[in-house]
Amino acid sequence: MPKVVPIQQYQNKPFEELRDIFTNDLQHVEEFTRSRLSSDVRLINEMSTYQQDSGGKKLRALLTLASAKLNGYEGLSHIHLASCVELIHNATLLHDDVIDNSTKRRGRTTSNIVFGNQASILIGDYLLSRCFEIMVDVGSLEILKLLSSVSAEISQGEVLQLQHEKQININEQTYLNIIEKKTASLFGAATKVGAILGKKSENEKSALLSYGKNLGMVFQITDDILDYFSTKNFGKDIGNDFLENKITLPIIVLFQKANDEEKKIIEGFFKVKGKKADLDYMLSLFKKYDVMNACKNRARYFSEVASDALGIYKDTRLRKILKELCFDLVNRAS
Amino acid sequence: MPKVVPIQQYQNKPFEELRDIFTNDLQHVEEFTRSRLSSDVRLINEMSTYQQDSGGKKLRALLTLASAKLNGYEGLSHIHLASCVELIHNATLLHDDVIDNSTKRRGRTTSNIVFGNQASILIGDYLLSRCFEIMVDVGSLEILKLLSSVSAEISQGEVLQLQHEKQININEQTYLNIIEKKTASLFGAATKVGAILGKKSENEKSALLSYGKNLGMVFQITDDILDYFSTKNFGKDIGNDFLENKITLPIIVLFQKANDEEKKIIEGFFKVKGKKADLDYMLSLFKKYDVMNACKNRARYFSEVASDALGIYKDTRLRKILKELCFDLVNRAS
Repeated sequence: MPKVVPIQQYQNKPFEELRDIFTNDLQHVEEFTRSRLSSDVRLINEMSTYQQDSGGKKLRALLTLASAKLNGYEGLSHIHLASCVELIHNATLLHDDVIDNSTKRRGRTTSNIVFGNQASILIGDYLLSRCFEIMVDVGSLEILKLLSSVSAEISQGEVLQLQHEKQININEQTYLNIIEKKTASLFGAATKVGAILGKKSENEKSALLSYGKNLGMVFQITDDILDYFSTKNFGKDIGNDFLENKITLPIIVLFQKANDEEKKIIEGFFKVKGKKADLDYMLSLFKKYDVMNACKNRARYFSEVASDALGIYKDTRLRKILKELCFDLVNRAS
Repeated sequence: MPKVVPIQQYQNKPFEELRDIFTNDLQHVEEFTRSRLSSDVRLINEMSTYQQDSGGKKLRALLTLASAKLNGYEGLSHIHLASCVELIHNATLLHDDVIDNSTKRRGRTTSNIVFGNQASILIGDYLLSRCFEIMVDVGSLEILKLLSSVSAEISQGEVLQLQHEKQININEQTYLNIIEKKTASLFGAATKVGAILGKKSENEKSALLSYGKNLGMVFQITDDILDYFSTKNFGKDIGNDFLENKITLPIIVLFQKANDEEKKIIEGFFKVKGKKADLDYMLSLFKKYDVMNACKNRARYFSEVASDALGIYKDTRLRKILKELCFDLVNRAS
């Protein structure tokens, strides 16, 4: 009988490990992006510098870099595509912040507040157009097809979300469909491009698409959870989604578990702008029904599917980090 | 000595002739666009149908169709690319209407009023993404490069316009630079793709790019003129640009010609929201300095350059129509 190898434990957090491995590449991504966004229009440079400086974790870019490495790719296109993936993400954020009238993101004042809604809409369009230019330069029709489809899918997810806004009894499946389109699809593309660059088989491409998509589901669900249960301030206040009347997974799960009387009260809350006092009542209901754990269980399901999708790859250190990342995201504090 | 052939006169207006020649193709463009915009998200279908039904002249699509024919192209890609060109245009309109808070376009209530700003921003993104998907399917990297660059150029033109808004003493050249980016670049791409599809030489591609770009300049300048001097109602009121504080060519030309006292008054007008009573004074100044003709002279310059760019093509009926269109646009009533 073959020896059973015990599951290895990690000393470092997988995200931090990933960031350490790709520090140089990530710097190239940033330099490349900066050079490609440069324009002879002053306001564009001001805004894209502001947007770039606001940072963010660059998780999507990291995933593209990691996937390219996992698939043995050795050219330079992964740098350019990691830039594309972040540009699509940032274009979405710029338009989202206008739509939601957000004032803070990643602890900083949002572009729509600093430069106005009009400029933010246009810069979002600009980032997306530059992203397409970069993709065209990379020259792979398969990747162009993938990323343009994903871009259309993100818009569809956003519109679907708008179509169901303030619908407190929204079906959980509809909600999952929304976040799959608006968030997970880009994660899926970010990782799949690595397998395409590495000229891998359809089977490996599918595996990486599945890894990224499911990881994206985990990411969005934990994002929803963190809004109510964050232990660390990451530039947002607790219950911001509630105060903005946004219906996310914790609310959907709670509404399904609540009794008729509570349902009526919750419905009432979502008919007017969210109030701080009502938030406290919501937090007590979350506690009563252990909503955080219920949501985390959903996230864990996607973590498991994501992690197992990498099962067809050899057991390298990088694969281990990417697998571990799936579970670690569920418990992320920011 | 060779016989000098007199310049032929046309019975029909060139735009109408063009539309008649390409009636079938244009119908294919519309059907194709409808099928590619279809989504499983209800709100997207509602909005894209509304957008499609609002019509418009489809001048850009016609130019792509005509250019493909002029260059002897016989496939189907010109239908798909004509659709792309209209999609880029419509995405821009959707965002422009949000930015300008417009209420009417082509005589109909704008999407931002019917469906809201949020949905309009997202549908604009959706149209652009679908457009890229279509381009990728066409599969020409040269065309992808051209259209993605144009898309970035449009955004840059729009931002440049925003950067200079309310600047009454804006340089005429800066203004021409803005409209070249935001309007003419798409016209240039619309016609150049015909030469690319027809696998013509760089010389012919340049000729068609120049034709379209200069025609686009004519189109935007006459658009600016029509806002003040339209004899036909085409869904907008006279002086709408003034009431919205928009600085366009007639204002720029007037400000250059006005005396110091008039300059002071005009500056005052643009410091507050435009008033109907002030508009009458502006119209009298336009008359005093014959601003309409001064603007038309600018347009005629671009007409001449556009028309002559087709000089390298054989003297066919289609070439004649396209050349005539340049001059006819200057005097268009709507």
